[in-house]
Amino acid sequence: MNSIRIAVDAMGGDNGHEVVIKGAINAISASPVKIILIGDEKKIADALSKYKYNGDDIEILHASEEISMHDSPKKSVESKPNASVVVAARLVGEGKADALVSAGSTGSVVLSAAKYIPRISDVRRTAIATVFPTMNELKRDDFFSFLLDVGANIHCSAEELAQFAIMGSAYVSDVRGIPNPKVALLNIGEESSKGGDKMKEAYRILNNIKSLNFVGNIEGKDILRGVVDVIVTEGFVGNIVIKTLEGASKTVGRLGKLAFKTKISWKLGLFMLRKGINFVKKVTDYSEYGGAPLLGFEKMVIIAHGRSNAKAIGNAIKLAGKCVSDDVCGHISTNIHNFEREPEHEYTRLATKRYRSEN
Amino acid sequence: MNSIRIAVDAMGGDNGHEVVIKGAINAISASPVKIILIGDEKKIADALSKYKYNGDDIEILHASEEISMHDSPKKSVESKPNASVVVAARLVGEGKADALVSAGSTGSVVLSAAKYIPRISDVRRTAIATVFPTMNELKRDDFFSFLLDVGANIHCSAEELAQFAIMGSAYVSDVRGIPNPKVALLNIGEESSKGGDKMKEAYRILNNIKSLNFVGNIEGKDILRGVVDVIVTEGFVGNIVIKTLEGASKTVGRLGKLAFKTKISWKLGLFMLRKGINFVKKVTDYSEYGGAPLLGFEKMVIIAHGRSNAKAIGNAIKLAGKCVSDDVCGHISTNIHNFEREPEHEYTRLATKRYRSEN
Repeated sequence: MNSIRIAVDAMGGDNGHEVVIKGAINAISASPVKIILIGDEKKIADALSKYKYNGDDIEILHASEEISMHDSPKKSVESKPNASVVVAARLVGEGKADALVSAGSTGSVVLSAAKYIPRISDVRRTAIATVFPTMNELKRDDFFSFLLDVGANIHCSAEELAQFAIMGSAYVSDVRGIPNPKVALLNIGEESSKGGDKMKEAYRILNNIKSLNFVGNIEGKDILRGVVDVIVTEGFVGNIVIKTLEGASKTVGRLGKLAFKTKISWKLGLFMLRKGINFVKKVTDYSEYGGAPLLGFEKMVIIAHGRSNAKAIGNAIKLAGKCVSDDVCGHISTNIHNFEREPEHEYTRLATKRYRSEN
Repeated sequence: MNSIRIAVDAMGGDNGHEVVIKGAINAISASPVKIILIGDEKKIADALSKYKYNGDDIEILHASEEISMHDSPKKSVESKPNASVVVAARLVGEGKADALVSAGSTGSVVLSAAKYIPRISDVRRTAIATVFPTMNELKRDDFFSFLLDVGANIHCSAEELAQFAIMGSAYVSDVRGIPNPKVALLNIGEESSKGGDKMKEAYRILNNIKSLNFVGNIEGKDILRGVVDVIVTEGFVGNIVIKTLEGASKTVGRLGKLAFKTKISWKLGLFMLRKGINFVKKVTDYSEYGGAPLLGFEKMVIIAHGRSNAKAIGNAIKLAGKCVSDDVCGHISTNIHNFEREPEHEYTRLATKRYRSEN
């Protein structure tokens, strides 16, 4: 039974539609999902003709336009109603598919989703999350941590940070199968008094949510240690952190070249380093590990990295399928609903309204 | 002529007073400075007795108390007027020394300086800066970038960010001898429209400062590339970024152990990696490179890393001496003064006042 239907933006990503289609073929061979490929009908059919697959598993939906990585997301989503990512989001919003996967630009996916897929009631802000490999000091079965928000919002209120924590915890609990994920707030010190009024308030709220395993603040130096499962921060900070890590990963690979040019005596060491560099790059290239979920919508949205290869696209589709079968969105909805209905948070809601009207 | 007098907190740092004193001995042998060692007179004299040096170059000033790394900086600076770092800051504030060097806790150095050393007139907020090694894409003679603020302030206004840019540029221009340092704002995108109202305003102000070589926004992934000389950000973000890099540097070293445990087939690669890892650690261990300047005071303050060894302490003292002889504080004062007197910024000053009264 292919009861789960995934809308896949066939035209998104840096590597062209053929890579996306190869990824879709990978996914249906390993996962009980039905895929709707959205984009240029002829191009998709041509690419599909290279593969043998069960015709019931893949459907094509024509979309006459595309949004490239260089287009302004805001203008394009408004002016191109037939762009593949927009059509895909509309399909999901109309209930004709259960989840959306796109390797298009983050902005175009976020805005298309926001336009057509309803937000979960009581969710104030959606958030982009990302997974990245860590030293796994928690000794989990895998070695990832989960960071949100990494850019859907620039700044947000203390209560919105608390909602991110609830959403991230529900996602990690379902998808990674960790019953009571450890959640931390990213801050400039471990003490609850650190980081200014908003962070202090976020700490206080999080500490009072009984259903959440909040372990306190962590600092930048702890991010890669893997001491918690979910790290919560504002989009401005999360975006800079994740890109700093991306840059650090690249730097490890490029340090070799630098040293080659500067000191003869390092040559031998660097030659020996080559294998190690490839290993480090592999571990730190988080684009391999599925995609970044966009949390807070009634349907699951997965943003695959623009550079995704077929394997990464396949992983993103499988991830979307797992999210649907685990009912991640339903659990987020229940937990956010419970949080908002606790009398303790009544005054916090008022404070958030005040914050919104002032900012 | 030992005309430059550096007050050195002999009791600060994780490694004890003997390391600080060894660092001081290193510094006087290489730099025309006179050092005043502040702390427990007997302990200092005992440690000094191991070395041969010109007695005119080193003086001891007794301070009966200490502030440890674990003490609350705020409470300690208030309650221990005879702590070595407090006495050292007072000495500098009274004009009896030209600069302060301490490897004590950042908080205790910042608060002691703030209590006794006047801020440069028109400087709204002092900032902690840090240097870190990069890929040096600018092809400078050394391969460092300069990031501020990394934690003296949590949040600040657009104009305060502009002042940080001016202070950082003056420092880098003097100390590294780069005539027109490239300055960038750390943001979530390169476009001037990114990052919310405050970042847009900071971009606009910086772009209008004719004496500044402002090159625009850079993202997290560009930090380690070394495409600019000075990176400006709020203390909350700067602190998290620098600690994330510190954590990434440690992780590179520790990945080896992780892999050893998980896969036999990696053993050979990791054995080969060993030399490379040591190289990467050396390059990324920015604690070797002098200390973090605290900018905005009338006298130079250098915070050496708590883990400093004698070499790092010596470098911090030499750096302080160079700052005094280059008159870094004088140049910061002139440039901030000129900035504040430009009629263009009149309305910005009013906006900052409004921001202050609201936050």
